[in-house]
Amino acid sequence: MKLRAEIIAIGTEILLGDIINSNASYIARGLAGLGIDTFHQQVVGDNPRRVKQAMEEAYENANLVITSGGLGPTEDDLSKEMGAEYFGVPMVMDEIAREHIRNYMTLRGRTIPDNNWKQAMLPEGCRPLYNHNGTAPGFILEKDGKILIMLPGPPSEIVPMFDEQVIPYLRSLSDDVMVSRTLHLCGMGESAVESVLHDEMIAMTNPTLAPYAKEGVVDLRITAKGESEEACREMIAPVEAHIHELFGDLVFGADSDTLPQVLLRELSQRGLKLAVAEACAGGLISSKLVSVSGASAAYLGGLVAYSDDSKIRLLGVRKETLSDFGAVSEATACEMAIGAAKAFGADAAIAETGIAEPASDTSKPSGTVCVAVYLKGEVSAVTMRYSRNRNSNREMASTAALNELRKALIKHDR
Amino acid sequence: MKLRAEIIAIGTEILLGDIINSNASYIARGLAGLGIDTFHQQVVGDNPRRVKQAMEEAYENANLVITSGGLGPTEDDLSKEMGAEYFGVPMVMDEIAREHIRNYMTLRGRTIPDNNWKQAMLPEGCRPLYNHNGTAPGFILEKDGKILIMLPGPPSEIVPMFDEQVIPYLRSLSDDVMVSRTLHLCGMGESAVESVLHDEMIAMTNPTLAPYAKEGVVDLRITAKGESEEACREMIAPVEAHIHELFGDLVFGADSDTLPQVLLRELSQRGLKLAVAEACAGGLISSKLVSVSGASAAYLGGLVAYSDDSKIRLLGVRKETLSDFGAVSEATACEMAIGAAKAFGADAAIAETGIAEPASDTSKPSGTVCVAVYLKGEVSAVTMRYSRNRNSNREMASTAALNELRKALIKHDR
Repeated sequence: MKLRAEIIAIGTEILLGDIINSNASYIARGLAGLGIDTFHQQVVGDNPRRVKQAMEEAYENANLVITSGGLGPTEDDLSKEMGAEYFGVPMVMDEIAREHIRNYMTLRGRTIPDNNWKQAMLPEGCRPLYNHNGTAPGFILEKDGKILIMLPGPPSEIVPMFDEQVIPYLRSLSDDVMVSRTLHLCGMGESAVESVLHDEMIAMTNPTLAPYAKEGVVDLRITAKGESEEACREMIAPVEAHIHELFGDLVFGADSDTLPQVLLRELSQRGLKLAVAEACAGGLISSKLVSVSGASAAYLGGLVAYSDDSKIRLLGVRKETLSDFGAVSEATACEMAIGAAKAFGADAAIAETGIAEPASDTSKPSGTVCVAVYLKGEVSAVTMRYSRNRNSNREMASTAALNELRKALIKHDR
Repeated sequence: MKLRAEIIAIGTEILLGDIINSNASYIARGLAGLGIDTFHQQVVGDNPRRVKQAMEEAYENANLVITSGGLGPTEDDLSKEMGAEYFGVPMVMDEIAREHIRNYMTLRGRTIPDNNWKQAMLPEGCRPLYNHNGTAPGFILEKDGKILIMLPGPPSEIVPMFDEQVIPYLRSLSDDVMVSRTLHLCGMGESAVESVLHDEMIAMTNPTLAPYAKEGVVDLRITAKGESEEACREMIAPVEAHIHELFGDLVFGADSDTLPQVLLRELSQRGLKLAVAEACAGGLISSKLVSVSGASAAYLGGLVAYSDDSKIRLLGVRKETLSDFGAVSEATACEMAIGAAKAFGADAAIAETGIAEPASDTSKPSGTVCVAVYLKGEVSAVTMRYSRNRNSNREMASTAALNELRKALIKHDR
């Protein structure tokens, strides 16, 4: 069955511009990854009549409709009912969904409002999608050569439900298997990566190769279509090898790897402990590390030495270094790194000192960031220059700082 | 003329999920601010037939259609032509647009590809929207009681064009003026705020009152429609006063105020300097403060004391406190706050110690966060409990921690 998908986001807050329709984007990307075409998206408010009208319009061109939102517990939330009505099936109580809601609320010590039980009602004959991160189940309904998949609205609920339940279901419908692998690069800009790969990307049809960039990291997604997962993986392997050959150590991971996670793993594997010292990044480097579950295996702590005085008192940066070279200098960054390692008793340290935006009282141009890494007694530094706004410069600098230590670990191994 | 709007985003990259449809969100919010209802949004690819079909569907319910994207220079970009075709008018060369393109490219030292001139073709009788940030002009076409506004796709082009040219045009269509004011609350959940205001919100028609929540902050938007801006402000004032009366110090600011910004302002006004000590927040509290331009006026620095050892060594937390009460306790938080103030020589300090997610080796339930604030020799602490995922719990705790110091400053003044 050749699938043609349409995505309908249900939510008045999207129509009012209060939230961005990130669910549609997430679903669209997932469908594209499976090779399923989407030609149209819609957004409607929490209004049963308009939800039904949107479905009717969608099925004029599509045979797979995926909705997000509108599954709330109130009497106004009638999206599921509209789905059932479109297919002419009644709503019935799903006992497992009911149990899920009971457990979800009980575990959190909340009383269950009466209207919550309405969320356990599903169209008869559907395949329920139980929700481990909220109370509203989703479902898949197949009828008359059409498929309706209705999912909850909160990203924390729809993302795992889509990844864990909807993607495998959709994959099972296709004779062809589609496999993607995404390699992550850090240390080269998107346009530079693209210019290296440009001709190859255009020439490739299966597998395909597509680049995406976000805050200092470039992703390269290789997608293969074939008879089996194994066949796809065999098609992907040489492309992956070729990218490794072209970009070497710039490639830091694949698929769900993130830079902080990879760095923490590399440190733990070597039994190394890490400390961080920041200035204009202002805690962002530490925060990126702590966002990784289990960070404490390698991360000891960090210091935000925003004032010159705190650089001197807490990190032991020398007054002369600050006066001779300035707070934003490789010399200061190096002393900060050494000071951080000492303060926390760490084997490795990352230090950053920079100017996030214009109007800082310094002679250095804004966007200048110096990063130093300390590793087992050795310290080195680099200077970077960014031309975005304050917080985007801070993001870029934090990513670059993590990457510098990753590179130093590789170099140290050699 | 009562306007009913529909937004159509044109772009294959949105359908593929490669970019988020932020333009629709931006336009929607602008329309909402003008009191113009939007009941439907669509996304279509760069395909003339589908663009035209989307317009036809849109005008079934709307009399104002705003599109973004599809105005590129290639032969495939036929969106404008479809707009002209829908209204039965020919495309003509706009000499000013042609001049704009010439200047834009010349200023940047670029040669002008032949197909760029196509971008200067506009539907006859339209009102051109010249583009100061790119080559593609937009336009407004009024015919048969319908309005079509076509805008370019890149956010750097559409945002100024919408703000500077489209908003004033739409405002000119209405006799009424619309003014919004948003109050920000912290320290009470969205549902609790809603339950306090529920009956009033339902009863109000002009001004209206709408709540929005994000990461620990609840926004209350008051929107008035009237003859003049002044008349609107007079209608808003008593509602604003009433909210202040109901929620008191929970209201921390209005419109573009943010919590870190307000806190830093309150500190500077009192000549106070701030230090931060964090555990599971992992730098997020500091990072929120440093995200504010000019943070250095009050923020000295921060410490992420992730390990027990660093809490003892760098913050002077006593071993007995850790063993008697645990790392996640109000007693530890208080000693961290005092230690941070001392380490940085600050008058005020915020300290956080918590368990961001299950599986930490501690007896306290996950999501437990203790926050202490130190202010001129006095220290106090509170315990919070969150039930989201690791990083959402960290966000909520960071916001709450900033708010605790804000509350302490108010209390101290009395």
